[in-house]
Amino acid sequence: MKLYDYLPSGNGYKVRLLLSWLGEDYEYQEINIHKGETHSPEFLAFNPSGQIPVLDIGDGRHLAESNAILFYLALGTDYLPTDAFAQGEVLRWMFFEQYKHEPAIAVARFIKIYAPERKKELPPLMKKGYIALDIMEAHLATRDYFVSDSLSIADISLYGYTHVADAGGFDMKPYKAIKKWMRRVKARPNYIKITTIPT
Amino acid sequence: MKLYDYLPSGNGYKVRLLLSWLGEDYEYQEINIHKGETHSPEFLAFNPSGQIPVLDIGDGRHLAESNAILFYLALGTDYLPTDAFAQGEVLRWMFFEQYKHEPAIAVARFIKIYAPERKKELPPLMKKGYIALDIMEAHLATRDYFVSDSLSIADISLYGYTHVADAGGFDMKPYKAIKKWMRRVKARPNYIKITTIPT
Repeated sequence: MKLYDYLPSGNGYKVRLLLSWLGEDYEYQEINIHKGETHSPEFLAFNPSGQIPVLDIGDGRHLAESNAILFYLALGTDYLPTDAFAQGEVLRWMFFEQYKHEPAIAVARFIKIYAPERKKELPPLMKKGYIALDIMEAHLATRDYFVSDSLSIADISLYGYTHVADAGGFDMKPYKAIKKWMRRVKARPNYIKITTIPT
Repeated sequence: MKLYDYLPSGNGYKVRLLLSWLGEDYEYQEINIHKGETHSPEFLAFNPSGQIPVLDIGDGRHLAESNAILFYLALGTDYLPTDAFAQGEVLRWMFFEQYKHEPAIAVARFIKIYAPERKKELPPLMKKGYIALDIMEAHLATRDYFVSDSLSIADISLYGYTHVADAGGFDMKPYKAIKKWMRRVKARPNYIKITTIPT
């Protein structure tokens, strides 16, 4: 397998973290999103949306969308429950992540780090991001993981940008259940940091 | 099963359309999004995101997020391929739909119909929506359906708001492959219109 990715990306990190936990070997190719490399004709042939990560599954077929890659890799492993309703719930949280969470929290982090000239976009993003965090906090108040009793790709998906939300300006102090959950995720063997490629 | 939904919603329609094709009976409960009914304490207990559709799967458990509901209902049916990579691809298009397509095309339609005072938000939404339509058009130029040779929940997901994109102000004339695909979807037995509950 070969992963096209950009190290600071939370979307790419989700895939790297699962690959580390699965113990999968893969090639890594850096695609610099700041140098237009996601919009080269070669890259657009893999993913016309012009976004990393993209996974070459090993036979020349490519899969885009971080959460779709997580699902593909997790099928048949402990990271995806087998029960139909539980699979639906895993997807429910992953769609929540891409609709309510990432567009606010990841974009705020991007603006803070790379695009300070766009800072007037921040107030509605902060408001939206705190709503997402509140929903996560309430859910985790009575649970260790998002779905069922063990860590699934729903947790990996939401962890990706939540654990760096402070870099987007979010005050995580009130989010006690989220912080306990993040410590739980981080304590697992073979955990890697966001800018790390497993070796 | 019981579906909490609002008839003009494309997200709810996706679920109604699949249920019609599956021949499933279900109760229907209207939740009027304009009267704050998605933010009542009762509704928020089913989905803290405050959005329809929500499906009571029949035993009191509730599933939110239109595409997660589609996946849950399609498991084990002809609307979801069994091959792992094909399932990944179905999800890839459904995540594309919720990230690149719905936030532009559905929101433009909402503003045009219900919130004309927000019309200054339209130009970036139109730009983003046309990018999504261009990606769909290029993909469909050589295929009848989004994944594999038959209709899947990826098609249902993307059809939901694409077939009413004109109500959002999108000029669909140049999108010849999308229009052929829409006619293909519409021609199937037991097709229902967006504001219809199957009987």
